[in-house]
Amino acid sequence: MSDRPDLENWSCPLPLRDHPNVVMGHGGGGRLSAELVEHLLLPAFAGTHDADVLNQLGDAAVLSLSCQRIAFSTDSYVVQPRFFPGGNIGDLAVNGTINDLAVSGAVPLALSVGLILEEGLALSELAFIANTMGMAARRAGVSIVTGDTKVVDFGHGDGVYINTSGIGVVPAWVDLGPHRVTPGDAVIVSGVIGRHGVAVLSVREGLEFGSDICTDSVPLNGLVHDLLGSGVEVHMMRDPTRGGVAATLNEIATSARVGVEIVERNVPVPDDVRAACGFLGLDPLYVANEGCLVAFVSADDAEQALEVMRNHEFGRGAALIGYVTSEHAGTVVARTAIGGQRVVDLPLAEQLPRIC
Amino acid sequence: MSDRPDLENWSCPLPLRDHPNVVMGHGGGGRLSAELVEHLLLPAFAGTHDADVLNQLGDAAVLSLSCQRIAFSTDSYVVQPRFFPGGNIGDLAVNGTINDLAVSGAVPLALSVGLILEEGLALSELAFIANTMGMAARRAGVSIVTGDTKVVDFGHGDGVYINTSGIGVVPAWVDLGPHRVTPGDAVIVSGVIGRHGVAVLSVREGLEFGSDICTDSVPLNGLVHDLLGSGVEVHMMRDPTRGGVAATLNEIATSARVGVEIVERNVPVPDDVRAACGFLGLDPLYVANEGCLVAFVSADDAEQALEVMRNHEFGRGAALIGYVTSEHAGTVVARTAIGGQRVVDLPLAEQLPRIC
Repeated sequence: MSDRPDLENWSCPLPLRDHPNVVMGHGGGGRLSAELVEHLLLPAFAGTHDADVLNQLGDAAVLSLSCQRIAFSTDSYVVQPRFFPGGNIGDLAVNGTINDLAVSGAVPLALSVGLILEEGLALSELAFIANTMGMAARRAGVSIVTGDTKVVDFGHGDGVYINTSGIGVVPAWVDLGPHRVTPGDAVIVSGVIGRHGVAVLSVREGLEFGSDICTDSVPLNGLVHDLLGSGVEVHMMRDPTRGGVAATLNEIATSARVGVEIVERNVPVPDDVRAACGFLGLDPLYVANEGCLVAFVSADDAEQALEVMRNHEFGRGAALIGYVTSEHAGTVVARTAIGGQRVVDLPLAEQLPRIC
Repeated sequence: MSDRPDLENWSCPLPLRDHPNVVMGHGGGGRLSAELVEHLLLPAFAGTHDADVLNQLGDAAVLSLSCQRIAFSTDSYVVQPRFFPGGNIGDLAVNGTINDLAVSGAVPLALSVGLILEEGLALSELAFIANTMGMAARRAGVSIVTGDTKVVDFGHGDGVYINTSGIGVVPAWVDLGPHRVTPGDAVIVSGVIGRHGVAVLSVREGLEFGSDICTDSVPLNGLVHDLLGSGVEVHMMRDPTRGGVAATLNEIATSARVGVEIVERNVPVPDDVRAACGFLGLDPLYVANEGCLVAFVSADDAEQALEVMRNHEFGRGAALIGYVTSEHAGTVVARTAIGGQRVVDLPLAEQLPRIC
């Protein structure tokens, strides 16, 4: 009996042919990731879900039960190294899935924790990571309710990989998504960008930047709660993790079939992050964040949205960075400091692999 | 700034001291797994959840929302090799989480899929695995609604690890759990045992047993639906995966504070599985299953439960294997073919690592 499939006869969909094997970029949140999902995973899972639930490709799926909408999200964390300034893989995994639920408009309720441990990992290190997960969950007011632990042989893992999945309830009056995004909408980020990616890279590469740049990883459910409860007309939110603000804006421009125009000098990049990015040859727009969100809000409510965010400890650095336009649908354009324009493309792959 | 914690000062809880580093057995579903959860993970997550939700340590957590009970479960799959007779890591991951929800009494609704891919994996192989996941989900009538893909460097993974998490709704009238288990209850398995573990091991070790033994991996939500809808008074169910029937019965005996007595010759073990286990030095009671469940039902309803199960395609081999006793609480005892008794202990670790 043949238990191994005949893989020779698989006809590789066109966009995948350049890379018949998995490359790091398939996990980077850029175009390669998108092609993998669109041409390989979505066709495989076709018919297993109501039209458009999976195809929304949001940070969380929203399911209607008889009397409630439940948001459901999953993320695996493989960040390398596991410890970096301001955090580690544990609180990152908790905050990350909380944020995916929050930006979907859900009140995060419960998380699962799936650990894949490598034989030989020190239990003291696991205990430290698990403790920071507990602290992060308590800080956010979210429950860890179920879990699973697997161990793989020495040399077949990388210390610890963590999957967190989460569920939340979407209040009846919340309606977010690309269908709500309209030309004229204001594009707001809740804080400075680029810190997480630079913090991880600085440790990985053993770099010293004078001052230490810490990850921005925090739970955003409180900030989202304040914003949605303020009366501001929010149309869509996303957290710009892998691929950074550039990838997030491109995804929204594509799914909402609108153009996005940002004013480069209005994008809040701390001086030390900018200096580090210059040194490393990175564009801060493409660097991963773990504690900020991008919100598309009605233009009339932009000022109020900024005020609400700035009143929250995790939204102090909120800034209006641009607008939605009816021109160049599907494309993000940045107005540069010298008055020019450039296209902010979806990256082919993440500049920095294994950033979360 | 120190981003790496001072791990030297962690005082290892007593039962963990023999193994200060992760060993394969920490993932095996036996006593080492239980100690890791009890002494390291539960304390870390304390206070993040309502009393007893996580502490139930069931296959799924059951959460009460305003008008429904939602079951929530997670499992990571690291089975080695990825392809084995009758299945692969993909359908195993779908069926496994569906079964965790089903034995909790929930109607499984939706799954998430978290992929951790190793750089260099052939996309054709990933496509094959993803397609079998889609087929498995469609067969079970469960939706795949959200997902995530990460890629780790060549040499830092093992081809593909899959996390599936799932949610389901627990009907209002369903009340299952250790609190319902009562002396006198009948202990029933829904089918023959031992096939999954032997199937995986046969490929891993390159063994030929004359006939090929296939995994028993199937979705059990239909069988559970029939059983719960039949009027049979079901008190508790579990699927005996890692650690096999022995680990499952021990967990239930401990959590319900009862004794369990099984009659060894009533345990349905196929001849080829028995022969293979003999050859390999394995006890079928400890071998992992992926398509059968253990049900504790009211003694009066035992015959009806067997009939209902045998009428379902995945319950043809259902058998009454024992009873709950008020004696030797927390202990599982087997009556042997020659009239003796032996204690069926919780294994220290899984006999077969990376079986799911």
